[in-house]
Amino acid sequence: MSLNKEWFTEICPESGSAFSLKVKQKLHEEQTPYQRIEVYETEHYGNLLVIDGYVMLTDRDNFFYHEMLAHPALFTHPRPRRVLIIGGGDCGTLHEVLKHPSVERVQMVEIDERVTRVCERHFADLCSANDDPRAELHFEDGIKWVEGAPDGGYDVIIVDSTDPIGPAVGLFAEDFYRSCRRALQPQGVFVQQSESPLLHRSLIDTMHEKLRRGGFDDTHTLCFPQSCYPSGWWSATMASASTVLTDFREQDAADKGFATVYYNRDIHRAALAVPAFMTGRPAP
Amino acid sequence: MSLNKEWFTEICPESGSAFSLKVKQKLHEEQTPYQRIEVYETEHYGNLLVIDGYVMLTDRDNFFYHEMLAHPALFTHPRPRRVLIIGGGDCGTLHEVLKHPSVERVQMVEIDERVTRVCERHFADLCSANDDPRAELHFEDGIKWVEGAPDGGYDVIIVDSTDPIGPAVGLFAEDFYRSCRRALQPQGVFVQQSESPLLHRSLIDTMHEKLRRGGFDDTHTLCFPQSCYPSGWWSATMASASTVLTDFREQDAADKGFATVYYNRDIHRAALAVPAFMTGRPAP
Repeated sequence: MSLNKEWFTEICPESGSAFSLKVKQKLHEEQTPYQRIEVYETEHYGNLLVIDGYVMLTDRDNFFYHEMLAHPALFTHPRPRRVLIIGGGDCGTLHEVLKHPSVERVQMVEIDERVTRVCERHFADLCSANDDPRAELHFEDGIKWVEGAPDGGYDVIIVDSTDPIGPAVGLFAEDFYRSCRRALQPQGVFVQQSESPLLHRSLIDTMHEKLRRGGFDDTHTLCFPQSCYPSGWWSATMASASTVLTDFREQDAADKGFATVYYNRDIHRAALAVPAFMTGRPAP
Repeated sequence: MSLNKEWFTEICPESGSAFSLKVKQKLHEEQTPYQRIEVYETEHYGNLLVIDGYVMLTDRDNFFYHEMLAHPALFTHPRPRRVLIIGGGDCGTLHEVLKHPSVERVQMVEIDERVTRVCERHFADLCSANDDPRAELHFEDGIKWVEGAPDGGYDVIIVDSTDPIGPAVGLFAEDFYRSCRRALQPQGVFVQQSESPLLHRSLIDTMHEKLRRGGFDDTHTLCFPQSCYPSGWWSATMASASTVLTDFREQDAADKGFATVYYNRDIHRAALAVPAFMTGRPAP
């Protein structure tokens, strides 16, 4: 269902809301073994990536999500060198991670190679760092990858997945979190996209519980705008066994020496603020 | 244009986007001398107020806007006693202002009495403080009211208007800002809703210029989520002649002693953070 054929619409049934973007044309459509990928050219948001009918990103506003998934975690770790990205096939998170000069190696493990190949063609900016010699692209199952990873092999693990339905369900499970904890060095930082603070509060609460049961002693949710996702407000949840997540390398963030569109030191601090309703009150 | 008759849809032409809410029934519709008012019962957002086809508020998420319009300005002023609200006919901002025990008198000046009468019926919670003896409701032209106000009569002026089109255009004008400056005491704080930081960046930049030309030496934009407005991200712009807007009564905010859903001291600080793209870069 859509406004008419000039619009792409995503309905969010659990909130009885819908978001639509006016489109000029469909640029690509294919069914992979994992999911249905579509790319549209929109009127005001640049290109739009859709997977299984859900908005994944647009050229115009993906900076919120990719910057807030990458930089807070990397500026929280004292010296991130080895980074693992699970999912993230559009390569936008990889692009942000590679801006950190301390990073020596980034492994991106995406289950569906077609997402990356489609994005190389239609979201060339996001993929512009893929040839960086520090970057490795692996098209495999991320859960199995982490299970097979050596103990303490990573400084930061970033889970950049679709919603917790279909192929991504296992990425929101306690067993997966326990594997990630094991694959991180003791000061390691984990971060995962965690849906809308307004609409998916119970998912976020459950994630915190599972992360703690999985061996992480500190957990903290970051909030940030994301105009093309339901409610326009999104979150990422960090976890660590020994690093205090509300502290970060503030001076390094202030002197970061690379360009961002949304992220800066003050925005990092701001994203750590916990809204009144997330400190024990029932969800609105 | 709507998804179908079960949905209310607002199209934002300047961004080629649309937001829809699933509705159960239309509860009210009338054409006043100023505008067309509609109220719907939605499936998951409670009641929905629509004016001239634009979403004004829903039961579920109006707390973001009303709290962020009221509390940062009131906790920035050293001791707010006399408050003027221009617009705000739904009475949600009035409701928040009256939570401050220092406030002795609040005048709300709304041009269209019918907005308030409709909200008294369909948004009773927002109007539940209207009988407070400190509250005065005046149904008059806000621009003329401020022009006729005595010098320095107010500690805080809040402009809670519709978009800067139609009857609200004059509320975004330099002459109006100059009148507000005159009607505020020297430490007075002005605040006005200022649209989406993502979509209406040039409006915000122009507001800062006009406010400064109107006699305010400090101006600062606050950002916060607002899921039912275009982009899901909204702003309020504060101005003052002599109060530093990035400082506020932090301890009083921490010990506020009244309930809020979103606002708290940390969220106040967070809303003051300026995204990278608002510090000189072109709008995304």
